[in-house]
Amino acid sequence: MKSRLEEILRKVQAGRLSPEKALDSLRDYPYRDLGFAKVDHHREILKGHPEIIYGEGKTPDQIVRIAREIVRKGSNLLVTRVEAPVFARIKGRLKGARYDPSAATVTLVQAPAVQGGGRIAVISAGTSDMRVAEEAAVTAEFLGNPTDRIYDVGVAGLHRLLDQHGTMSRARVIITVAGMEGALPSVVAGLVKVPVIAVPTSVGYGASFKGLAALLAMLNSCPGGVAVVNIDNGFGAGFMASLINHQ
Amino acid sequence: MKSRLEEILRKVQAGRLSPEKALDSLRDYPYRDLGFAKVDHHREILKGHPEIIYGEGKTPDQIVRIAREIVRKGSNLLVTRVEAPVFARIKGRLKGARYDPSAATVTLVQAPAVQGGGRIAVISAGTSDMRVAEEAAVTAEFLGNPTDRIYDVGVAGLHRLLDQHGTMSRARVIITVAGMEGALPSVVAGLVKVPVIAVPTSVGYGASFKGLAALLAMLNSCPGGVAVVNIDNGFGAGFMASLINHQ
Amino acid sequence: MKSRLEEILRKVQAGRLSPEKALDSLRDYPYRDLGFAKVDHHREILKGHPEIIYGEGKTPDQIVRIAREIVRKGSNLLVTRVEAPVFARIKGRLKGARYDPSAATVTLVQAPAVQGGGRIAVISAGTSDMRVAEEAAVTAEFLGNPTDRIYDVGVAGLHRLLDQHGTMSRARVIITVAGMEGALPSVVAGLVKVPVIAVPTSVGYGASFKGLAALLAMLNSCPGGVAVVNIDNGFGAGFMASLINHQ
Amino acid sequence: MKSRLEEILRKVQAGRLSPEKALDSLRDYPYRDLGFAKVDHHREILKGHPEIIYGEGKTPDQIVRIAREIVRKGSNLLVTRVEAPVFARIKGRLKGARYDPSAATVTLVQAPAVQGGGRIAVISAGTSDMRVAEEAAVTAEFLGNPTDRIYDVGVAGLHRLLDQHGTMSRARVIITVAGMEGALPSVVAGLVKVPVIAVPTSVGYGASFKGLAALLAMLNSCPGGVAVVNIDNGFGAGFMASLINHQ
Amino acid sequence: MKSRLEEILRKVQAGRLSPEKALDSLRDYPYRDLGFAKVDHHREILKGHPEIIYGEGKTPDQIVRIAREIVRKGSNLLVTRVEAPVFARIKGRLKGARYDPSAATVTLVQAPAVQGGGRIAVISAGTSDMRVAEEAAVTAEFLGNPTDRIYDVGVAGLHRLLDQHGTMSRARVIITVAGMEGALPSVVAGLVKVPVIAVPTSVGYGASFKGLAALLAMLNSCPGGVAVVNIDNGFGAGFMASLINHQ
Amino acid sequence: MKSRLEEILRKVQAGRLSPEKALDSLRDYPYRDLGFAKVDHHREILKGHPEIIYGEGKTPDQIVRIAREIVRKGSNLLVTRVEAPVFARIKGRLKGARYDPSAATVTLVQAPAVQGGGRIAVISAGTSDMRVAEEAAVTAEFLGNPTDRIYDVGVAGLHRLLDQHGTMSRARVIITVAGMEGALPSVVAGLVKVPVIAVPTSVGYGASFKGLAALLAMLNSCPGGVAVVNIDNGFGAGFMASLINHQ
Amino acid sequence: MKSRLEEILRKVQAGRLSPEKALDSLRDYPYRDLGFAKVDHHREILKGHPEIIYGEGKTPDQIVRIAREIVRKGSNLLVTRVEAPVFARIKGRLKGARYDPSAATVTLVQAPAVQGGGRIAVISAGTSDMRVAEEAAVTAEFLGNPTDRIYDVGVAGLHRLLDQHGTMSRARVIITVAGMEGALPSVVAGLVKVPVIAVPTSVGYGASFKGLAALLAMLNSCPGGVAVVNIDNGFGAGFMASLINHQ
Amino acid sequence: MKSRLEEILRKVQAGRLSPEKALDSLRDYPYRDLGFAKVDHHREILKGHPEIIYGEGKTPDQIVRIAREIVRKGSNLLVTRVEAPVFARIKGRLKGARYDPSAATVTLVQAPAVQGGGRIAVISAGTSDMRVAEEAAVTAEFLGNPTDRIYDVGVAGLHRLLDQHGTMSRARVIITVAGMEGALPSVVAGLVKVPVIAVPTSVGYGASFKGLAALLAMLNSCPGGVAVVNIDNGFGAGFMASLINHQ
Repeated sequence: MKSRLEEILRKVQAGRLSPEKALDSLRDYPYRDLGFAKVDHHREILKGHPEIIYGEGKTPDQIVRIAREIVRKGSNLLVTRVEAPVFARIKGRLKGARYDPSAATVTLVQAPAVQGGGRIAVISAGTSDMRVAEEAAVTAEFLGNPTDRIYDVGVAGLHRLLDQHGTMSRARVIITVAGMEGALPSVVAGLVKVPVIAVPTSVGYGASFKGLAALLAMLNSCPGGVAVVNIDNGFGAGFMASLINHQ
Repeated sequence: MKSRLEEILRKVQAGRLSPEKALDSLRDYPYRDLGFAKVDHHREILKGHPEIIYGEGKTPDQIVRIAREIVRKGSNLLVTRVEAPVFARIKGRLKGARYDPSAATVTLVQAPAVQGGGRIAVISAGTSDMRVAEEAAVTAEFLGNPTDRIYDVGVAGLHRLLDQHGTMSRARVIITVAGMEGALPSVVAGLVKVPVIAVPTSVGYGASFKGLAALLAMLNSCPGGVAVVNIDNGFGAGFMASLINHQ
Repeated sequence: MKSRLEEILRKVQAGRLSPEKALDSLRDYPYRDLGFAKVDHHREILKGHPEIIYGEGKTPDQIVRIAREIVRKGSNLLVTRVEAPVFARIKGRLKGARYDPSAATVTLVQAPAVQGGGRIAVISAGTSDMRVAEEAAVTAEFLGNPTDRIYDVGVAGLHRLLDQHGTMSRARVIITVAGMEGALPSVVAGLVKVPVIAVPTSVGYGASFKGLAALLAMLNSCPGGVAVVNIDNGFGAGFMASLINHQ
Repeated sequence: MKSRLEEILRKVQAGRLSPEKALDSLRDYPYRDLGFAKVDHHREILKGHPEIIYGEGKTPDQIVRIAREIVRKGSNLLVTRVEAPVFARIKGRLKGARYDPSAATVTLVQAPAVQGGGRIAVISAGTSDMRVAEEAAVTAEFLGNPTDRIYDVGVAGLHRLLDQHGTMSRARVIITVAGMEGALPSVVAGLVKVPVIAVPTSVGYGASFKGLAALLAMLNSCPGGVAVVNIDNGFGAGFMASLINHQ
Repeated sequence: MKSRLEEILRKVQAGRLSPEKALDSLRDYPYRDLGFAKVDHHREILKGHPEIIYGEGKTPDQIVRIAREIVRKGSNLLVTRVEAPVFARIKGRLKGARYDPSAATVTLVQAPAVQGGGRIAVISAGTSDMRVAEEAAVTAEFLGNPTDRIYDVGVAGLHRLLDQHGTMSRARVIITVAGMEGALPSVVAGLVKVPVIAVPTSVGYGASFKGLAALLAMLNSCPGGVAVVNIDNGFGAGFMASLINHQ
Repeated sequence: MKSRLEEILRKVQAGRLSPEKALDSLRDYPYRDLGFAKVDHHREILKGHPEIIYGEGKTPDQIVRIAREIVRKGSNLLVTRVEAPVFARIKGRLKGARYDPSAATVTLVQAPAVQGGGRIAVISAGTSDMRVAEEAAVTAEFLGNPTDRIYDVGVAGLHRLLDQHGTMSRARVIITVAGMEGALPSVVAGLVKVPVIAVPTSVGYGASFKGLAALLAMLNSCPGGVAVVNIDNGFGAGFMASLINHQ
Repeated sequence: MKSRLEEILRKVQAGRLSPEKALDSLRDYPYRDLGFAKVDHHREILKGHPEIIYGEGKTPDQIVRIAREIVRKGSNLLVTRVEAPVFARIKGRLKGARYDPSAATVTLVQAPAVQGGGRIAVISAGTSDMRVAEEAAVTAEFLGNPTDRIYDVGVAGLHRLLDQHGTMSRARVIITVAGMEGALPSVVAGLVKVPVIAVPTSVGYGASFKGLAALLAMLNSCPGGVAVVNIDNGFGAGFMASLINHQ
Repeated sequence: MKSRLEEILRKVQAGRLSPEKALDSLRDYPYRDLGFAKVDHHREILKGHPEIIYGEGKTPDQIVRIAREIVRKGSNLLVTRVEAPVFARIKGRLKGARYDPSAATVTLVQAPAVQGGGRIAVISAGTSDMRVAEEAAVTAEFLGNPTDRIYDVGVAGLHRLLDQHGTMSRARVIITVAGMEGALPSVVAGLVKVPVIAVPTSVGYGASFKGLAALLAMLNSCPGGVAVVNIDNGFGAGFMASLINHQ
């Protein structure tokens, strides 16, 4: 944007543009240029990562078109929530794309991501929480974070969780993934001194109300140091953890 | 009831009552007699305890009148949810009544209750859960159960809970009382092999929605062996635990 | 675990192990061993039953692999929420497994369970509640409890329920299963002096909100002696009732 | 309205009014006259009762002014939801008004109401439901219905309810009033063959959610012949029952 | 049951049965006989209609078996919520059964029902409410009530509703069926002096929350004389209206 | 209606009709005529647009029959919520009908609509909101409003939105369409001085609760000048905007 | 802002400022100036009205300080939600301020507002809705709109509403205010061809859930041309109506 | 803990303790010692901060007693949610305690906290959100974080927010505090590349449902990098931000 302003100012200085015409061409200036020049570039630098595609509800065709655009610019590619049959129709058209069925993600890495300052641990309560936990873990790894998985350590069998104390204490950020009663982040946050990102999952039935029970439990988590993302939002947790780990 | 039926039958046999009139007097019989004779007495024996007064919303006068009726019959008296100012207006009129401010209960014991087969442990998560926990404990004791209190052992400080393992393992029934995320019964039930009664409390703010978060969490408790009573229903938990302990 | 600890202590006593090396091999002992050795065995003794498989959302393959592990250890096997087509793909690979279509359970009993102290009655309100009621009954039987089924005795036809008074009064614990208005546990608990476990079901439509109406009704049950498990959680009710019956 | 129309028509017939002017004076006729003349009178005849004042949220002054208007027309007066202190400020200004503290109603009867064809029974579950039950009973009586009160017969003590079978079977319409689990109308409707109006009350705490639990239970009532009014709406139930009893 | 009781009494009178043996055979009489003999017949007289089958969730086989039992006793048959493919598998096995696709009901009338005292009007707001409205109308007719249908007269086009004033004013009971904003019963009840049964439907989308919006609106209906049944419960409305019309 | 009244009045004047018979033929007049004559025509003029067909839940047959009726009267036709397979079965039977797959609408324009006074801008937050946004835009255009589409300008990338300031400032009414957090109307209304119609969409997952999150956010929109329609109600927004633009 | 930009440009033209220094002084220009100079003025022009103070939760002191700032700039003043005791503490310190107790508003008009193009009608259902209706009406008048009040015309007494057809048909925008079942906007929108703003109120009890019932009903309003603002948001409705009336 | 184990082992080695007695003294060892020795100390080191007192619901006496305990140990003191009248009764008994009325916090700093690695920015939407924002800011500062306050920059006046871009971009973590529509974190997270903690507040009325609207909006926040804490939980946000800033 600076250059456009500069150009105008120089024209005014050179007498090639009257202040009136300059003013006229600058009407809406803060907004227009904000859009095209400054902010867009600013944003790429600012956010420090390529755009990530949320695959659910998109056709294979739409995913391929957006993905190619990203790949063409030399960026790394991450598509979340891609079911296997969708990937089957994608893979022939996206050379080098790699599918992770347990996370339901598609990745294509062209250049290594900037590494974060520590490790991220992803802890899940039950086996049914795995897809969401994997989405979080794959996202974290994609964004340059060494990641440890600690799965199936729900609070009903406390010893299995406590047994992982070593791995937990090596993490700089912890992601906890749990459905049903959502008690895991409360217990974990009481054991560590790092930020805990809590992901409620829709795992459960009846009074779990598709994850509402776990969500409310996590928002009411008693120990400090817990913050919550949307139900089943593994990507959001991985992204947030990566931001923290890159500070 | 039997006697009334017998009386009618004997009159019919003696020819003092025609079958028609007998039939007539027996119309509604199953219901009417159920009410007056059989069930009422049956119920006292059946439920094995005097009626208990729920004090909230009752005037001091109403409480006194019902309480005196119970005391007059020689039964023990328990009134729950009595605030101190209400008791101040009651105590002069109920000789021997004893007020427990932390439980907000009034008791008057005339004869020892039948003792249960084991001990009941009442475990609460935070200090704010104490009134409900005490209501449960006082109820359990009133109904003849030796009771252990383990307070302020929320899952955020797991070690304080685990440290009470000895007391927990001596209990035949455990009552867990917790607000906020309501994770306590899940953790406790994973550590013991006795029935756990879960009492959500309205302790908390915001997304606790007056105990809804804890209630939902407890209903979704992952380990087996947990059943739930209403929010803040310390009495119900103590009563249920006593029933179990008297089996 | 005792044996491992004992072994170490005896080696130290015998001078075959220095305290330093003993300490070293016990590092993380409370946790590590908790996980691998002690707690697992402790837990088996503690909870008094093998792990039970929740079949919903698991592939036939996953079920078979976990089930074989349990069977291999000589334990009895219970898998809940197995639809008929899933069992069709399992049965060839699990010798001796028995399918109960009305309960949607798979069982394989290698050794008789420890018998509980009394009988458990399972009472359901309507024919549509049967799958949940059967899940409760099969679970209770699997865990060693003689069980009576009293079905289709909703409060709309009170006489059918009252007619079962004899069977009810023989029970040491009662499980009530009802959808819609969920009134059954309130009526039953008023008639008996044993603990009543209430299971709301998702049977109904419109303002039943998939079992929410029944759940709330049961939580507000007026007579003492009722505790509630999750909507459709027949297994949880059977398990809780068994715990009580084994006290 | 007929008279105004008739007058116009006669004037036209008599040649004292041209059709054009008649048309002009009838512009907006369906609406205007609907408002002032026809419908108002039509409505009085139609609805068969004077307007009833909902007292909550009105000042003593407002109540007195509306009440006097009704009394002045010779109609009977019913004001609902009037707390005692409000009536204290009203009574001096409404000669002959009678206050019923248990129903929180003010009545002033100048002429007997048209009697309904049968009796109305008002059945309530607990003592705390009494204000709502009395509002229903007083409304029913005010509108010309002999009314029987059957109070404190919740389903927890079934025999007390069954004992009232005689009174119930004499009713042409039954109003059931219950908070907490709201099971009463289901049980009552299974015992009688007359319409049952169900009134949920806000009595309860915790998961009663101010009457929501009872409301949902009643809407899901299993036996036919139950219809529901708003939480605590004793007046609405009494009014509906009276309408039925006057058919 | 009367007959069995009568038989026993006559035997006692005749000296063929001692009071002792009579008593013995009557043990548990209120309950046992309540179940098998008395109440069932009593109930038939009491409720004045055969049992009605709720078809949803039942297999064709189950429906046929229950239906045949009812038909065999000479009663009329009504099955609600039967989709066309289900009826296709039923019709060959239930001679004389008649299917109404718009109401999704199966009927088989062997003897005319007792006629009610007046007419029932079924008024629906939109064309999508028709299945529920027809379920109500068919139920009302089946139970002996001449019924008028007034469809597609939602409050958005008030004139269409007002135009039906004549038919409305002939009704002794009115059923209103509406989804979305559920305003119809409020408007109708303001125009008539007969009881109005309101049926919310799940018609709508978004913030209708499957009929919740209409349900709440109807419960808050301002004019007196409205009572509400469950969402989509056309049968319940028709049944209630018939009860009223038979008083 | 005037004509019918006039005819009657003239007959009375002419002595061909007695006032009595006139009165008789006018019984129910306000309602009856309201229905047939006056209001219907009044309504067409009043609302200024033909009836619009809501296609969801209607069979192709039903749509064709209603559509032909509208077309036959010479009106323009708009059918909303028509999926492609439904249109495939319609198109052969509705000559000239045009299908818009992104809006899921069918239109058939026979005469240009009355043009509104300004332009309408339709702004959507994400690509998944497009179907709803297109439904709004197509409706607005159909009703005679030049419409600008500004899509995929959610608040997460503020510069893309600000860049469209010029187009926004040309609009006389703005429609904002957003799911998830529903923040778009708040931001837009802060930038313009024209009315903003907010359409929440069901786009999202988890705690979006099918559009509830966006709906609540929009209802709480901080800047003045925002009003909300139902979730996914693109048609309603387009219709409302058109009404405003035609004032 | 223009002036500052112009000044800079003129200095550049005059050679008194180099383009480099101009650029420097414009760093962060879009934002900084956006905040202090441009947008603020732009906004005043843009929104066409002074800032309005929401009084609830503000101390008398805070209100006075903000109000004086507004008055000092020569703008008109509107403060909403000011209870009488708060105004009592304000009036001495705000010369010329006028309090409207029925609307709970404070106004101080220094210059007439720009008049809107037509009239606004405010229609309310019941007397309890008056505060909200008056807040809407006073806001509309304050912003330069001649306003008609049509109160107490709920749908239960349709004739009172229809009787106001004349006034309604004169309005360019209509605001409808209703609690309880919230049916008013649906009926009104069916009668007129102007935009209808719907304001749900928290008037009611029980299942009105503090206005939720009315809110949902209004969002599901069947006829086109209705948009909704927050519960009790009379100000928002008046503001929106004014915006429309000034287009 | 190690030392106790070591001591036992050395005694065994020295023959002063038999393995049997050692085993005996180690019964419950993992739990008991966990409680008393290891975890407690571990936790202080682990969490890196003294316990913080949640003042709401505690009596002045309770606060003073706990506070003195903390102060006595030489720790810094923070008490949240202390209303002014409560502090008035505290201050005489807690020498050096400092009250912050806008945050409702009491602090007493005895030693400077460990400083975090960057700055924390606290951004709030409206003036009513200030108490929560200040609670967050005071907490952050108390825990050793330089903190910038950016208040009253809601999305309705975007320029005020954008104008603060400089301060925002200097922050290492950002806390956003907003009620009503809760749009602030979405907009902020789109402008920065640091973690954003979102705090919904209960500010608003009607459909804000005490912060639920803002909570849901924040959980659905579209841009990555947002995590949410409980409604009004300023402390939780400050604590979480501090944890991140100390990584």
